Amino acid sequence: MAVLKSEMPLSIVLLSGGMDSCVTAGIASKTSRLACLHVTYGQRTKAKERKAFEDIASHYGAAYTLILDMPHFATIGGSSLTDLALPVRTTGIDETNIPDTYVPFRNGNLLAVAVTWAEQLHARYIYIGVNEMDSSGYPDCSASFIRAFSKAANTGTKPETHIIIKTPLIKLNKCQIVSKGMSLNVPFEKTWSCYQNEDVACGQCDSCRLRLKGFREAGFADPIPYHNLLKEKNVE
Amino acid sequence: MAVLKSEMPLSIVLLSGGMDSCVTAGIASKTSRLACLHVTYGQRTKAKERKAFEDIASHYGAAYTLILDMPHFATIGGSSLTDLALPVRTTGIDETNIPDTYVPFRNGNLLAVAVTWAEQLHARYIYIGVNEMDSSGYPDCSASFIRAFSKAANTGTKPETHIIIKTPLIKLNKCQIVSKGMSLNVPFEKTWSCYQNEDVACGQCDSCRLRLKGFREAGFADPIPYHNLLKEKNVE
Repeated sequence: MAVLKSEMPLSIVLLSGGMDSCVTAGIASKTSRLACLHVTYGQRTKAKERKAFEDIASHYGAAYTLILDMPHFATIGGSSLTDLALPVRTTGIDETNIPDTYVPFRNGNLLAVAVTWAEQLHARYIYIGVNEMDSSGYPDCSASFIRAFSKAANTGTKPETHIIIKTPLIKLNKCQIVSKGMSLNVPFEKTWSCYQNEDVACGQCDSCRLRLKGFREAGFADPIPYHNLLKEKNVE
Repeated sequence: MAVLKSEMPLSIVLLSGGMDSCVTAGIASKTSRLACLHVTYGQRTKAKERKAFEDIASHYGAAYTLILDMPHFATIGGSSLTDLALPVRTTGIDETNIPDTYVPFRNGNLLAVAVTWAEQLHARYIYIGVNEMDSSGYPDCSASFIRAFSKAANTGTKPETHIIIKTPLIKLNKCQIVSKGMSLNVPFEKTWSCYQNEDVACGQCDSCRLRLKGFREAGFADPIPYHNLLKEKNVE
């Protein structure tokens, strides 16, 4: 017997507007009412990501939405995503080093505010679309980090607050994420992943490369526009 | 042989401007250069706390200072410290419940941004002036929370980042904190603790009551002005 939407538990979904968080929202929406949380942190593609967030949250009929600005990532600096003086790398993914798009402890900060909102809304779950495989090696995307943060979240909130952090994509690669999303009819056309452009995706930054590789390997066409289809064929 | 200041490790100090964080800065300054971090989060006494932060950071010759605004605590609500529609309680401390001045997972958010800054500055320590005894029962002031967060911080940052969270006041009560601060000549006159006033401390809110009790038990006069000295005699 189908569960009524109003009887489903409430889940916070960290929704950047990228494909991973959109697939995560699609998964969460099967068993939860959604409270969608979007954080702008001075990243280059802020306006486009915010539009993607709004479109996706609306697509899933979110019960709550919250957009927060955390300008301190840009104030502190250290990442080419927020420091406009640093170029975004477009030369391909180096498996051995953490790239300079790494925003120090970003997911620690995002999960912290998600825990604040979850405690306030009495939400049972926090969904975050991290994945270990194709995460550019960011340390705050690992399963061990999520486990450790989950312990901190439940130790540092009221005794009656019990929050479960769900990471349905953690063991998937981009190809599997695309396949999963396609099987759930997630609105990939509403998502945005490019690190540097807001109109037509560059196809060259790490995020575009990982996304295009995922779609290619899954055997689907990526519905968003790319700057140069010739370049797309060369990325890996 | 004395260690040169320039050879001391760098420590982030979370400095609210209250007496606990000031004593913590005094302790940290004995063995560290200081990077003082102040976060405004929509609390009532924001301007006064910021002034206290600046005075204390200047007193200790901080190598770095950073003031960040995290308005999302007020946006999310749930605390009488940030929700101006809720009165600040002045009827005394109830030992059995977490008071409504609790800001959900506040220290989780503060420590997350401190970790971001620590990783960027290559700071070795983060000092936070939490104490379990006289913390109004806030769950994010416990030693078990700090241990769990420390694990999360080191799991979610670069492999070469090693951050130690120091809580020198965690087992002290307010009386012991006052005594410790007096022995270190910390500038208590520059601190601010009152939850509701910015000119003359109310003497009635939980924070004023705990502070006054601490000074009284330690046998010292609190150097900051209080609204009504007659009322002060009745607080407990």
